[in-house]
Amino acid sequence: MSLTGETNTGVALWRRVADSIEQGIADGTYARDTRLPGELEIAEAHRVNRHTVRRALAVLAERGLVRAERGSGTYVEAPRIAYPLRSRTRFSEIVGAGGLEAGGQLLSASIESAPRELAKRLGLKADAPLLRIDAMRMANRIPICLGTTWLDANRFADGGRIYEKTRSMTKLLAHFGVRDYRREWTTVSAAIADAADAARLDLALGRPVLVADSLDTEPNGTPLLTTRARFAAERVQFVIENQ
Amino acid sequence: MSLTGETNTGVALWRRVADSIEQGIADGTYARDTRLPGELEIAEAHRVNRHTVRRALAVLAERGLVRAERGSGTYVEAPRIAYPLRSRTRFSEIVGAGGLEAGGQLLSASIESAPRELAKRLGLKADAPLLRIDAMRMANRIPICLGTTWLDANRFADGGRIYEKTRSMTKLLAHFGVRDYRREWTTVSAAIADAADAARLDLALGRPVLVADSLDTEPNGTPLLTTRARFAAERVQFVIENQ
Repeated sequence: MSLTGETNTGVALWRRVADSIEQGIADGTYARDTRLPGELEIAEAHRVNRHTVRRALAVLAERGLVRAERGSGTYVEAPRIAYPLRSRTRFSEIVGAGGLEAGGQLLSASIESAPRELAKRLGLKADAPLLRIDAMRMANRIPICLGTTWLDANRFADGGRIYEKTRSMTKLLAHFGVRDYRREWTTVSAAIADAADAARLDLALGRPVLVADSLDTEPNGTPLLTTRARFAAERVQFVIENQ
Repeated sequence: MSLTGETNTGVALWRRVADSIEQGIADGTYARDTRLPGELEIAEAHRVNRHTVRRALAVLAERGLVRAERGSGTYVEAPRIAYPLRSRTRFSEIVGAGGLEAGGQLLSASIESAPRELAKRLGLKADAPLLRIDAMRMANRIPICLGTTWLDANRFADGGRIYEKTRSMTKLLAHFGVRDYRREWTTVSAAIADAADAARLDLALGRPVLVADSLDTEPNGTPLLTTRARFAAERVQFVIENQ
C-alpha cells in the first residue's frame, strides 16, 4: 500500500487528466451520451502516455461519469433521474420533483387469466380475470420505463379506458374510489432489454434495463396492483433511504 | 379487450405450453442456465404452432423464468438471491440466511487521495487519504459481487491487512472499535459489466451488473465507509420493503 503515480507537485498525472475531463463534462465541452476523444488524442493533448489516460478513464468510469463500450470508445454518461423507492412511489411526482414533465402512453389493455403466482400476490384465485395494462412513462418526452400492471378485472372493469384518458395509475384508482395507496415492496434486478423493449425505450441493442417488480396496496393492506417495470438503466437510478 | 386464444376447455394453448415448460424447470428437466429446446422442437412436442410457443416463452420471460439471448436461444434463469436493502445490510448475514455459505476475497488494498465527491460523502477534506479495498464476495463459491470500499485511511490505517485476515467489513470495523453501523442510503442502477468485472464475476461478455452505491454510518450519523458494488444481475435481486 503506497501513494503511487504522484508527480513532484503531489498530484498524480492521471488525476489531472481525470479532473480535466470531468471539467469538460461539467461545462458541456463533452456533451452527454457522446463519445469522448480517443485515448491517443487525450494523451497528446495532456502530454501523457496512454496508460495514464486509461487510468483516468477507468477512475471516471468507476465514478459513473463515463462508460466504456466495447470496440466503440468511451461515452459521457447522462445524469440519471433519482427515483426514490419508498412507500409513496408515484412516477409523476418523482419526475415532476426533478423539474421534468412526466408523460404516459397506454400501449395496450387486455384481460388475462391470472397465473398462480400473480393471483396469490393479489389475493385472488388462480385463473381469476386480470386487467393487464401496458404503458410507457416518459420524462420530457424521453422514454423512462415500460410497465406492465395487473389489477383485479372484476374490481377495475373498464380501467384500461380510464388509463387511456388519464394516463395515470393514481387517477385510474381514484376513479374506482381508491383515494390512497402505498408501495408494499419492490424487487430490483437487471437484464438486457429485449428487442421490443429496446425499440420502445429508444435504447441501443444490448443495453441494460432495471427490472422492478412491485406490489401496491390500500392503507389497510388490501392488494391493489402489481407491476413489472423495465427502466432504461442509463437514465434512472433508484434511491433507497433508510430512516 | 377480450379473452383471446382460449381453447374449448377454457385454457389457452400458450398457457398450457408455458405451464409445461414451467413444470420442466421446477422438476429439473430444464436445468438452470441451460438452453431450452428450440421453438420448433417445443412446437412439435406440444402439437402447436411456433406462434403459440413464442407467446408461451414471452410470458415466461416476462415472469423472469427464462431469458431470450439474441441469436442464441432461450435460457432457463437461475433463481436469484434475495438481497434486502435495509438499514442493517450485511452480506454474510443475507447470504447465510438463504442457507448459502458466504465467502470473501481481498483483491487489493491501497491508499488513494479522495476525489471531492467521495471526500464530501465521508465528511473528509478533498484529497484526504482514503483506504480503498477491492473485494469479491461469494455465495457457495459462486461470485456474487465486486465491491470497492473507501474508508478514512487515518482512522482505519492497516485496515487492508485486517480485511485480508477476516474477509469481513464488519470484523474490520470491529477491530477499530466500531461495534455497530447502519446503511444510510443505497442507489441502484445497472450497466454492462466491463471486461475485468465480467472475468472476475464469471459472466459472459455483455451481461448486466447491478451497480449499488452506498453509505454506511455509525449510529450517531458519522460516515464510516462508502462502497460501489457491482452485483451479477442474473444472480441477485434487491428487495426493498416499506414498513
